[in-house]
Amino acid sequence: MTSSAPRPRFPHRHLLGIEGLSPHDITALLDLADEAVDVSRQVEKKKAVLRGRTQINLFFEASTRTQSSFELAGKRLGADVMNMSVASSSIKKGETLIDTAMTLNAMRPDLIVVRHHAAGAVQLLARKVDCSVINAGDGAHEHPTQALLDALTIRRNKGRIRGLTVAICGDILHSRVARSNLILLNAMGADVRVIGPSTLLPPGIERMGAKVFTDMRKGLAGADIVMMLRLQRERMNGSFVPSVKEYFRYYGLDAEKLSCAKPDALVMHPGPMNRGVEIASDIADGAQSLIREQVEMGVAVRMAVLEALAGHLPNQPNP
Amino acid sequence: MTSSAPRPRFPHRHLLGIEGLSPHDITALLDLADEAVDVSRQVEKKKAVLRGRTQINLFFEASTRTQSSFELAGKRLGADVMNMSVASSSIKKGETLIDTAMTLNAMRPDLIVVRHHAAGAVQLLARKVDCSVINAGDGAHEHPTQALLDALTIRRNKGRIRGLTVAICGDILHSRVARSNLILLNAMGADVRVIGPSTLLPPGIERMGAKVFTDMRKGLAGADIVMMLRLQRERMNGSFVPSVKEYFRYYGLDAEKLSCAKPDALVMHPGPMNRGVEIASDIADGAQSLIREQVEMGVAVRMAVLEALAGHLPNQPNP
Amino acid sequence: MTSSAPRPRFPHRHLLGIEGLSPHDITALLDLADEAVDVSRQVEKKKAVLRGRTQINLFFEASTRTQSSFELAGKRLGADVMNMSVASSSIKKGETLIDTAMTLNAMRPDLIVVRHHAAGAVQLLARKVDCSVINAGDGAHEHPTQALLDALTIRRNKGRIRGLTVAICGDILHSRVARSNLILLNAMGADVRVIGPSTLLPPGIERMGAKVFTDMRKGLAGADIVMMLRLQRERMNGSFVPSVKEYFRYYGLDAEKLSCAKPDALVMHPGPMNRGVEIASDIADGAQSLIREQVEMGVAVRMAVLEALAGHLPNQPNP
Repeated sequence: MTSSAPRPRFPHRHLLGIEGLSPHDITALLDLADEAVDVSRQVEKKKAVLRGRTQINLFFEASTRTQSSFELAGKRLGADVMNMSVASSSIKKGETLIDTAMTLNAMRPDLIVVRHHAAGAVQLLARKVDCSVINAGDGAHEHPTQALLDALTIRRNKGRIRGLTVAICGDILHSRVARSNLILLNAMGADVRVIGPSTLLPPGIERMGAKVFTDMRKGLAGADIVMMLRLQRERMNGSFVPSVKEYFRYYGLDAEKLSCAKPDALVMHPGPMNRGVEIASDIADGAQSLIREQVEMGVAVRMAVLEALAGHLPNQPNP
Repeated sequence: MTSSAPRPRFPHRHLLGIEGLSPHDITALLDLADEAVDVSRQVEKKKAVLRGRTQINLFFEASTRTQSSFELAGKRLGADVMNMSVASSSIKKGETLIDTAMTLNAMRPDLIVVRHHAAGAVQLLARKVDCSVINAGDGAHEHPTQALLDALTIRRNKGRIRGLTVAICGDILHSRVARSNLILLNAMGADVRVIGPSTLLPPGIERMGAKVFTDMRKGLAGADIVMMLRLQRERMNGSFVPSVKEYFRYYGLDAEKLSCAKPDALVMHPGPMNRGVEIASDIADGAQSLIREQVEMGVAVRMAVLEALAGHLPNQPNP
Repeated sequence: MTSSAPRPRFPHRHLLGIEGLSPHDITALLDLADEAVDVSRQVEKKKAVLRGRTQINLFFEASTRTQSSFELAGKRLGADVMNMSVASSSIKKGETLIDTAMTLNAMRPDLIVVRHHAAGAVQLLARKVDCSVINAGDGAHEHPTQALLDALTIRRNKGRIRGLTVAICGDILHSRVARSNLILLNAMGADVRVIGPSTLLPPGIERMGAKVFTDMRKGLAGADIVMMLRLQRERMNGSFVPSVKEYFRYYGLDAEKLSCAKPDALVMHPGPMNRGVEIASDIADGAQSLIREQVEMGVAVRMAVLEALAGHLPNQPNP
């Protein structure tokens, strides 16, 4: 990065959700992420803007992809990165979430990346600490960096977000990914649809600005982007669990259903995929798929978020 | 750190316990730790005195707080830090502690930080390796960096250690924290008391220089520092396990009992806390509590220990 | 390292096995490893040839020794190293090996070090990614860095490999270590023998260039190097599992059996050792043992492999 003009500061201390970000904030993060893509494509993948800063990845739920992405993002920016998973944590000794937060805070980190199984836990934690907090997924609430990486992937492939028709398909009810994407895409002027069986659609989803479809072919008609969701059977304890075969028949993306969307429609999935459940293998690996590019954009978006929040780190010298 | 005069070398190769350290050694470590506090409060938390050195954290018992503290301490000093937990280790394949030690030693580390469930295991290991070894807690024996961080916290808040009355309260029998603190505080001229039910007091504790109390109110009378211990119910297999309610009634620190100590008494706890068992929440979070500051001092003390021992690393060039 | 003449590029993109390496390739790696030994013996153990490169250690089987060795090797070369163990991975969520590989690949690593329980899994993965892949052990197939570190240890102690008589003893059937060593030692002109009970010898092993012995004393007669293998009882589910006592009597290396080899014979073991099962403690720790030196050479060889492959990393500028 060799921009000569000083970049305006990002006006938030934390990234707890897409809710609360302005279209201007989102655009600023995506622009910074575009630069980060180039950093990771160099032989020497370094932009040492976080040298000497401490980043803690605090994961109460395992997540290979998200944690790795944040770890590489921090390291490529020169931060000292420390991973903490709940399995080896004092939580097992009966310590509360708040005590864990306060303990980490006392070690003077600059950034804490948190994933937690309970909606709202990350916000609670952010109120207790002096550093910047990034939500890496909290229950069924938000997963803001996923929505940002999806937006970056769309913008780089379609040149814009405004005016596109984006169909989000599958298990909307349990999906923080769907929720964050819905908020972001609406804010950026896309036309958003959600598609799923009525049992997997949250009540009142229309009021969040989504057109609702239970018939996948109708929902896909004219779509520019088909965003598939993982069927989270591990979250469906006690409630309705569809049979895999039945689910794929009605809501799995295959070539026939994809043909209902625009001819140049692009396919996305946050991963990890259940091949043959929500998506057919040939579509996942096909020419219209952006799934692998999404992973690359994930590292870039996390680098952008870390760098943007670094302008609000504690004890930051005035610019 | 910009001291101009050369610092005298720390005269020990290992830190296996507080036992064996002179008051001069302890003061030297606390002085160095005071400087380390400032490093961690900067935006760029780096003092690269261990650049290119290898630090291995070998934890046979899980410990979020201690391991994290050593990890950040090493990284802030520029060391290459490698964590090894027993869960993923060859120990499960039947390898002995000594073979594990010799294997690690052959990888030419400069510093090995060890936590082990057996008293004496760390000393045994230290005799077998060429590098410096730091005891991060061995059974009910010693936990020297905890005692040093407690001393640093006291000295920064009271201006001195000599002449203070320090009451250590709770499960003295199972506590390496109590043992290391008792040795350090005596060496530094404090007046040390231990308070607990007779079943949780080791026989002969008076001969270590402690005044013994089973009545908490009497033990707290006139104390400058009230140092609570974690009730380690997980170590009490087979032996007497007190009921939590009963324990709190007699030995839990609440406002009423704390009022027996001096009005400006300060409260400490090594964490993780059992709120409502050994300490009331309002005291833990109250104005007299140093509990969070202890965590910050933990990173600083570990930086000081790592740096001090670095003067005795293998293949060290003569100064 | 201060060689003035440019070093020729290593002609392979991956290191999947010893099979396929020429004697010239092997010698080049051993020469580079000799230099790496010196790096790790310095106070500042750094040769930052991989600065800004990303190395991922992807371990589907736990292995303290091998993973640690690769981690330290990468860090001493300045790489950003990220560990991923299967326990915390998406594999548990049903993701395929190939999806995991493609996901990691999209994060733009330069090097992926893989251990997998299935023979051939590493080759499969290597075909799918853009970066260099190093086999850290795949099933009973190959473990090339182990064979290289053994060769380095032998060359440094005997001055050569050609013409030496090397006896590999024990559980040949389940051993990727035996297989990789057999290929390497044959390629480098050693006279290789394998010794074991007929139930632990793979059929047709003679055709790989080994003389086969079931009598250990006969097999050791005149040997320069005695290479013991770990008895991998954990891999013997369902098949013949020898009793430990019986096994040691016939195939455990003790002073009496070792006396059948040359007087200056040297003893090796890849670790972790089952003392009293395949090797007597006094031999493991005795004057003829190279076992600890092998561990040190392990770090050096892995540094050499990482550095050699770095000449073939993606987006590498032309030299």
